[in-house]
Amino acid sequence: MANKFISIKNLRFLLHDVHNVSQLTNDFEYYKMHDKELIDIMLDTALQIADKELYPYFQEMDHTHVPEVKDGVTNVHPHIPHIVKVMAEGGWISATVPEEYGGMQLPLMVNLCAEMIFQAANNGAMFHSALTSGSAKLILSFGSDKLKAEYLDNMYSGKWLGTMALTEPGAGSSLSDVKTSAELVEDETYKINGHKIFISAGDNNFSENIVHLTLARIKGAPAGTKGISLFAVPKYRKDENGNLIDNDVTSAGAYHKMGQKATPAMHLAYGDKDNCHGYLVGEKNKGLKYMFQLMNGARIEVGVVGAAISSAAYYASLQYSKERTQGRKISDKDPNKAPVPIIQHADVQRMLLLQKAITEGSMSLILEAGRAYDLSKVLEGEEKNKAAMFLDLLTPIVKVYPSEEGIRSVSNGLQVFGGYGYTEDFPLEQMYRDMRITTLYEGTTGIQSMDLLGRKVMMNQGAAAMVFFEKVNQTIEEANTHDELKKYASILSEEIQKLQKTTMHLSSFAMKGEFELFLADANLYMELFCILTIAWQWLKQATVAKQKMLTDNPQGDDLKFYESKIHTMKFFFHYEVPKSYALNTRLMDTEVLTLVEDKELIV
Amino acid sequence: MANKFISIKNLRFLLHDVHNVSQLTNDFEYYKMHDKELIDIMLDTALQIADKELYPYFQEMDHTHVPEVKDGVTNVHPHIPHIVKVMAEGGWISATVPEEYGGMQLPLMVNLCAEMIFQAANNGAMFHSALTSGSAKLILSFGSDKLKAEYLDNMYSGKWLGTMALTEPGAGSSLSDVKTSAELVEDETYKINGHKIFISAGDNNFSENIVHLTLARIKGAPAGTKGISLFAVPKYRKDENGNLIDNDVTSAGAYHKMGQKATPAMHLAYGDKDNCHGYLVGEKNKGLKYMFQLMNGARIEVGVVGAAISSAAYYASLQYSKERTQGRKISDKDPNKAPVPIIQHADVQRMLLLQKAITEGSMSLILEAGRAYDLSKVLEGEEKNKAAMFLDLLTPIVKVYPSEEGIRSVSNGLQVFGGYGYTEDFPLEQMYRDMRITTLYEGTTGIQSMDLLGRKVMMNQGAAAMVFFEKVNQTIEEANTHDELKKYASILSEEIQKLQKTTMHLSSFAMKGEFELFLADANLYMELFCILTIAWQWLKQATVAKQKMLTDNPQGDDLKFYESKIHTMKFFFHYEVPKSYALNTRLMDTEVLTLVEDKELIV
Repeated sequence: MANKFISIKNLRFLLHDVHNVSQLTNDFEYYKMHDKELIDIMLDTALQIADKELYPYFQEMDHTHVPEVKDGVTNVHPHIPHIVKVMAEGGWISATVPEEYGGMQLPLMVNLCAEMIFQAANNGAMFHSALTSGSAKLILSFGSDKLKAEYLDNMYSGKWLGTMALTEPGAGSSLSDVKTSAELVEDETYKINGHKIFISAGDNNFSENIVHLTLARIKGAPAGTKGISLFAVPKYRKDENGNLIDNDVTSAGAYHKMGQKATPAMHLAYGDKDNCHGYLVGEKNKGLKYMFQLMNGARIEVGVVGAAISSAAYYASLQYSKERTQGRKISDKDPNKAPVPIIQHADVQRMLLLQKAITEGSMSLILEAGRAYDLSKVLEGEEKNKAAMFLDLLTPIVKVYPSEEGIRSVSNGLQVFGGYGYTEDFPLEQMYRDMRITTLYEGTTGIQSMDLLGRKVMMNQGAAAMVFFEKVNQTIEEANTHDELKKYASILSEEIQKLQKTTMHLSSFAMKGEFELFLADANLYMELFCILTIAWQWLKQATVAKQKMLTDNPQGDDLKFYESKIHTMKFFFHYEVPKSYALNTRLMDTEVLTLVEDKELIV
Repeated sequence: MANKFISIKNLRFLLHDVHNVSQLTNDFEYYKMHDKELIDIMLDTALQIADKELYPYFQEMDHTHVPEVKDGVTNVHPHIPHIVKVMAEGGWISATVPEEYGGMQLPLMVNLCAEMIFQAANNGAMFHSALTSGSAKLILSFGSDKLKAEYLDNMYSGKWLGTMALTEPGAGSSLSDVKTSAELVEDETYKINGHKIFISAGDNNFSENIVHLTLARIKGAPAGTKGISLFAVPKYRKDENGNLIDNDVTSAGAYHKMGQKATPAMHLAYGDKDNCHGYLVGEKNKGLKYMFQLMNGARIEVGVVGAAISSAAYYASLQYSKERTQGRKISDKDPNKAPVPIIQHADVQRMLLLQKAITEGSMSLILEAGRAYDLSKVLEGEEKNKAAMFLDLLTPIVKVYPSEEGIRSVSNGLQVFGGYGYTEDFPLEQMYRDMRITTLYEGTTGIQSMDLLGRKVMMNQGAAAMVFFEKVNQTIEEANTHDELKKYASILSEEIQKLQKTTMHLSSFAMKGEFELFLADANLYMELFCILTIAWQWLKQATVAKQKMLTDNPQGDDLKFYESKIHTMKFFFHYEVPKSYALNTRLMDTEVLTLVEDKELIV
C-alpha cells in the first residue's frame, strides 16, 4: 500500500485560498462558530481517523471479508460497526445539521473535504454512515415532529442506520414507473408492498435498526412521477408498547458487484407477509421532489467518491513512479548504467499529470459546488436564488466529471504500474473496479447529461448558465492580471464563447419542439461543459497560486506546491482543452446518426 | 449470458469481400489447398467449438474455478485440458505451419478469424494453446534439427505446452536488463538460473511437459540487448535413457489478477537446486531478435483479444438494449404508455454504434495486418519487402487500438446495462476486467507508441509509412467513385495530409538529435495514427458495402448488413475522426510539459 492517499495541504489550499471558506465563517452568523484554525484541526482529525480506522482495511474489505448473506443475515466486515461508531461519535453523520438538532452547522465545503479524506482511504466502507446522514436529513427537512422525534437521535448517534430506496427491477432511471405500493392503515401509517434493488447498505448484522427512505405509490395516486410518495420504512417498527418488532422488510439477496464490495447492495422485499408498515414523510405525492434533496446530495457525494479514489490512485502511482526503476532516458541508453526511476520518462509524467489534473480539478469543482450550497442556505432574496441555481447547474457536472474522468485517471494510474497494476499486489486494480460504478449510480451519465442540457442550462431562460458564465469571466479577468496566465485566460474566454454558440445552436431545436434532436448528443455537450468547467477551476487555482507566490514569497515545498499548480493548469490547457474542438464540431454538425428509427441499422 | 458473441457474417465479409483472401488462395501455390468454401467451413467449425467448449465455461472459469497453487501443483479448471485437446486435434495449434511439419499452411488471416471466434467466446481460456503455437513456431524457425525433432510433434499434438518467458522482477519493459543467467554445460545445453514473472500458462496440473522459451544471458555476454540468448527450458527434461525427469523449474506462486483468471500468470524460479537445463535456440546472443518473431505475433494476438472481447460485449449490450424496456421517448413521456426498449434512446444508440465501430474497425485492421503477413511469406523481392514493412508498421497499431479503444468499447457496453452491468448477473463486468490487461502485456501502449513513431514510421526514410499512405490513398480513390462516400473520402484525405505534416514536424526533432522531445508525446501520435487507420478501414468497408449493394442487389438481412456498415462508417467519421484536431494541435504545440527535470513539479 502507498503511504499517502490524499493531500491535506491541497485541501487547505482549495478551502482557504481558492474557495475562501473564511468568508462564510466571518460573514454569516450561521457558520460563525467555525474558523480557519478549527477547520484545519477538523481536517487533521479526519486524516487521523482515515489513517487508523479506514485505510488499513481497504484491501481486506475487498479481498477476504466481502459481505455475505447467510441464513437471512447480512454479515459485513467486523470493523464496519466500529467505523460507524467513530463517524457518529465524531459528529460526522450530523456535521452540517443545525445545532438545535445536535449538529455542528459545519459548512458543507468542510464536510466535503472530510468526506474526500475518508473516501480516499476506503471508499467502500463509507456508505453506512453517509447514507444515514442523507436519509436522516430527509426526515429532518420534511418529516413530521413525531418522525423526527423517533428517528433523528437514533440515526445521528449511529444506532439506527438509513438508506435511500428508489430503484426497482423495472424502474431504474425511469422513476415514473415505480410500482411499490402503499395502502393507508391510519394517520401517517401505510402498508408497503414491493421490491427495491441495488439498495446500498440495505442490510447488516449490527445496527439496532435500518430506516429505508422509500419511494412508493399510494393506491389510487396518479400515474408517473406525480403519484410518488416518500415513506420511512424501518426494518423494525415499534409496537404499541414501544418494543421493536419485525417490520417485514426482508433481504432477497445481495448483488455480486465488481467493486465497492465492503458495502452490500441489497435486493429488499417489502411486505412478503403483508405486514410492512411505512410512515409518510411530508405530503402525499410529493415524494420525488423530497427525494431529490437527498438525490442531489448523493450526486455530489458520487463526485466526492470519484475525486477521492482518483486521489488515492494518484498518490499510489506517484510513489511507485519514484521508487520503481526501469529503462533509461532515450538520449542515454547505455545498458551499463543503472536504470532510472520511471517518473523520469515523459510518458509516465504525462500520465501522472493527467491524474493530478483530473483529481485536483475535480476537488476544486466539488468545493465550488459546496460553497454554492453553503451560500444558498444563508443568503437572502436574489442572491440566494442565484446561489441555488448555480448549485443546480453544477450538480450534474459534479456527478459526471469526477466519475467519467476519474475512471480514466485511475486507469492511467494502473498503467503506471505496468503488469503489476493488474494484480492484487498493488491497490490500483481494486480502485479501478471500485471506480467503475460512479458513472452508474445516482443517475447514469446519460441521465445527468439530459439534466444539464435539457433542464439546468435552459431553466429560467438560461439564468443559471448566466451565473456560471459570470463567474468564469471573473476568473478570466483575475488571471489576466498575470502575464504568465494571460494566454490561458484568453483560451478559456474563446472556448466559453464557442460553448455559448453551441448552446444556442442546440437550444434552437428545443425551441422548434424537436426535443429528440435537441438531446441526442447531450453526453457530448456534458463532456464539453465538463472540460471547460475544469479548465476554469484550474485557471482559478493557478491564479491564486500566482498571487500567493507574489504576496507570500513562499520557499521550499510551498513554492513547489504553487509551481506545480501552475504547471498542471498548463498541462490541462495543452492536453485536455483542445478536445473541445471535436466536441463543438460534432455538436454543431447536423448529420443525425443516433436517432435511427429502423433499429436494424445497428446489427 | 447473451446468445451471440461474434458475427460470422461479418468475418466472412471482412475476409472475402474487404480483404480478399481468395487472392491468396488463387494466386499463391503455398495457399492453394484452401478455397472460399473450405475457409467458410473452417469458420463454422470454429464457431461450433466456441459454442460448445468455450462459451459455456466463460463465467465459471472466472467466478468459481480460478486456478490455484496448492502443494506445489497449479490446478486449472478441469475443462482446460479438454480445450487444449480440441485445439490440437482440430489442427489449430499448427494451423499456419507448413504441411511438412504437420500444419495446414492456413493463411494467417483465416487463423486470426478463428482466434477471434475462440477469444470472443472465452478469452481467458485460450492461452495454453495459443502460447504453445507461438513458442513452437520459435523452435521451428530457429531451433536445431534435434530440438525440432524433440519438441515440435509433442507441442503440436498438445501433449507438451509452451510459454514465452521474458519478464523479470527488475526487467519488464526494459529487456536489456534481463538477468537470468546461462552457463555452458556442453554443446547446446546450458545451466539456467533466475526468475521470470507474469508467465501466462506458466504451470498446470495436466500437460506432460511445459516448454518455456526463455531469454537469458550467457555468462560473459555483452551487457544490454546484444547479450541475450534464447533457450528452450522444459519443466521436465530427458535423461540419458530418454525418461522425463524434473528440470528444476518451480512455481514460486501465481499472481492474483483482476481478470483473465482462467489462465494463471506464474512466477517461475529456474535452478533453485542448480539443476535446470536449457537448450540454446539458434545462435548465441541473438535471442531478442528471435523472440521478436514471437513477440510480434503476440502483439497481433493482443489485438485479437481486444477485438474479440469488444465483440462479445457488443452483442451482449445489443441484445440487452432490445430486451430491456425503460423510460419513454423524450417527445412522448405519457406514463400510461408502456416503456420502450432502451435501444430507442439516442444515447444508447450512440454507445452501441461506438461499440460496433471500435469492434468491427479493429477486426478489419487485424485482417489487414494478417494479409500483410501472409503476403510477406509468399511474395518475392521488393513486393515482399513492402509487405513486411507494412506489417511492421501496423503491428504496434494492431496492439494498441483494439486494446485501448476496446477498454472504452466494453466500458460503454457495461454502461448500456446500467447498474446491472456492475454485477455478476451479466458478463460485462468480467469483460471489463478481462480487457484491462490488453494495454499492458506484450509491451505497454507507451512502448508501442515509441515503437511506432521512433522506429516504424522513421525506418528506411519513412518507407513503411509511404506504403501505408499509398494504400490509404487507393481506398480514398475507390470511395470517390460513390457519391455518398465522397465527403468521407475527402475528410480522410485531408486528415492524412495533416498527419503527414505532424509527422514531419516531429521528425525534425529526431533530425536535430532531440530524441526526448521527439518521443515525449508518442502516445498522442499513436492515438492520432490509430483513429486515421480505423477511419481508413471503415471507409474501405463502406466502399465494399456500397459496391455490393450495386452489384448484388441484396435484400433483407444482407441489405441491412451493408447499410449498417455505411451507417457505422459515418458514425466513426462524425464522432471519432474530429478528435484528430485536438491531437494534431497538441503534437504541433511546442510547449514542453512532460520532460520535467525537477520532478518535484509533480507533487
